[in-house]
Amino acid sequence: MVHDITGPLAVKGFYEIAGEDAHVWDPEKIVILFDHQVPADSLAAAENHIMLRSFAASQGILNYDVFEGVCHQVMPEKGHVLPGDLIVGSDSHTCAYGALGAFSTGIGSTDMASVFATGKLWFMVPETLRLRAEGTLPRLVTSKDVILRMIGDIGADGATYQACEFAGSAVSRMSVPERMTMTNMAIEMGGKAGLVDPDETTLGYIRERVPDFDGERVLHGDEDASFTERGWEVSDLPPQVAVPHNVDHVVPAGDLAGTKIDQVFLGSCTNGRFEDLALAAEVMRGEPVARGVRMVVIPASRTEYMKALRAGLVEKFMEAGAIVESPCCGPCMGGSFGLLGDGEASLSTSNRNFQGRQGSPKARVYLCSPATAAAGAITGEINDPREI
Amino acid sequence: MVHDITGPLAVKGFYEIAGEDAHVWDPEKIVILFDHQVPADSLAAAENHIMLRSFAASQGILNYDVFEGVCHQVMPEKGHVLPGDLIVGSDSHTCAYGALGAFSTGIGSTDMASVFATGKLWFMVPETLRLRAEGTLPRLVTSKDVILRMIGDIGADGATYQACEFAGSAVSRMSVPERMTMTNMAIEMGGKAGLVDPDETTLGYIRERVPDFDGERVLHGDEDASFTERGWEVSDLPPQVAVPHNVDHVVPAGDLAGTKIDQVFLGSCTNGRFEDLALAAEVMRGEPVARGVRMVVIPASRTEYMKALRAGLVEKFMEAGAIVESPCCGPCMGGSFGLLGDGEASLSTSNRNFQGRQGSPKARVYLCSPATAAAGAITGEINDPREI
Repeated sequence: MVHDITGPLAVKGFYEIAGEDAHVWDPEKIVILFDHQVPADSLAAAENHIMLRSFAASQGILNYDVFEGVCHQVMPEKGHVLPGDLIVGSDSHTCAYGALGAFSTGIGSTDMASVFATGKLWFMVPETLRLRAEGTLPRLVTSKDVILRMIGDIGADGATYQACEFAGSAVSRMSVPERMTMTNMAIEMGGKAGLVDPDETTLGYIRERVPDFDGERVLHGDEDASFTERGWEVSDLPPQVAVPHNVDHVVPAGDLAGTKIDQVFLGSCTNGRFEDLALAAEVMRGEPVARGVRMVVIPASRTEYMKALRAGLVEKFMEAGAIVESPCCGPCMGGSFGLLGDGEASLSTSNRNFQGRQGSPKARVYLCSPATAAAGAITGEINDPREI
Repeated sequence: MVHDITGPLAVKGFYEIAGEDAHVWDPEKIVILFDHQVPADSLAAAENHIMLRSFAASQGILNYDVFEGVCHQVMPEKGHVLPGDLIVGSDSHTCAYGALGAFSTGIGSTDMASVFATGKLWFMVPETLRLRAEGTLPRLVTSKDVILRMIGDIGADGATYQACEFAGSAVSRMSVPERMTMTNMAIEMGGKAGLVDPDETTLGYIRERVPDFDGERVLHGDEDASFTERGWEVSDLPPQVAVPHNVDHVVPAGDLAGTKIDQVFLGSCTNGRFEDLALAAEVMRGEPVARGVRMVVIPASRTEYMKALRAGLVEKFMEAGAIVESPCCGPCMGGSFGLLGDGEASLSTSNRNFQGRQGSPKARVYLCSPATAAAGAITGEINDPREI
């Protein structure tokens, strides 16, 4: 998988390695998606899109153009991710697909050039770190709060090159979208992959999307597997927020109560699915976006957008005063959909709060769940969504 | 009226002229709107927004922030335009407000600095050019086709500094939105203003939006006024297209039949209203956007968006494969919502097709009505919408 930012360099590298007339190793195993700069937000983006379209057409590669959505949502939803698959993507959060029991990991564009040419890559088999979340999540506390807490406790480099397997009774009860939020962020503690052992929830999700799925390659952990384990009891977990400028600097939302915000971003591959939007709308309960706050809502894919639209959520958000945009990565990585100026603060459901990532290096990005983002939208400040 | 591109220079000029502690001449007569770069598409845009918000707050000026829509739609729709008003705006298409019988014209940001300081400006009284459109427009032929034909015949500098008064039986039957499309483009033939004599249609539009409107200052042409006149019979007018790179290079859409396009833009202050979207959806009759074509739909304001949403049009466009974005100027003036790369062609309902305006100087922009744009969207080429 490559997208519109990382794809061009991979294509350039491929032709350099393999020659101008070369064919990719297997066009059916490559997917190109446009999501970071859609619709083209600059002349450079337009040229990248033209180049990638031409590459895809000439090589017979499937290309999801500007209207389909964010790579990490479109890949599983269109059936390109199955349990037992080994998937590489030129994007850090490729580890998300582990929610379906695939081993998936982010690689650089130059590595991808070799993959395009040969279909092969060298990996060291990672050690496994099992992260167990036990218990029942309280009302308005979500899988995002669990993963933020885990990252806060493990640290940004605490799971470097490890396969992070999420397990425990709380994870077992989670839907696939909820699990995707967690596996998506495995990289934020250094993980090589994020994984959930495929169960009936996984298989149900896949059968809906891949009718001829035979389940043949579904893999589970061996009985005698060796691994390290960490456990969390989440039944009393309060909503969590990662404060600027590190994902592993995590505190309960209530500790930040009253912190003024200028923007709320509800979306991204981490939390831009229908369930996330529905939860946010529930927390907002028809109240308007607070004066002085911009709320940007961007569903993660066309499919998720249509679900939200038909459930009346687009209307609810627009009525509240939010801006609802077509599926794309949005401001997550500094895209052109709501950048922050000096001194501004954003409450964001995305996955990274590094300095300058959403605009000015003098801005602050707080990461949270859709429920906490929604509470922020209507109060204009960070709050525990259960306290408003 | 200033917007987020022209406002910052006007504010800077104002403080230079009037001093750092100065107050504007009358805060109630100034309106600021954010529409060209919303939500902030760059750090510079974010900083401009912060500066304008602060200026508006400190001076007590009304500021429509990133969620409201395009200035030339929001101004009349929120009741800031009344017949008999003299309105200046720092945007070329300010002449649009003449659809309501106001004399409105575009001025530069430095002129606007003086207006902020003094409320005064020097004008030469323009001569009047009356452009009569007589007859009944054929099915799928719109006011956009009429104004394109007029500009084609008059030429880009054929009405320089003239007050362009649109009249005749065809104009009398037009709704205010249809008239706005015409007055909006008066500048494209050099006009100082575009005007329609206020009638019951005008007053009905205003009464819906300004309940305490007293009609006191409604002005009409004097019986003995002197003016030049040009006339068009529009009953047989075919759909028109302005071809690259001049607005006055206008031919019947049928003459261009088969010209391949890469993008369709349905929106802008010229043709981004509910009626425009409804007409486009009618022409598309549920058919998908042609393979290889990107269709970008951007309603001109939040109000128009909500009308379209509730009428099911957002769903229809998204289902067809279009991208529907929150209200803003979009790609019209090279904004970050779908720029064109080298060699690409766009069919656009906006008002200017100057070289490089929607991206690459090697791209081509064709201007047309919403019906012709919709025909292009589903066929992938320019066509007379009545012929598909």
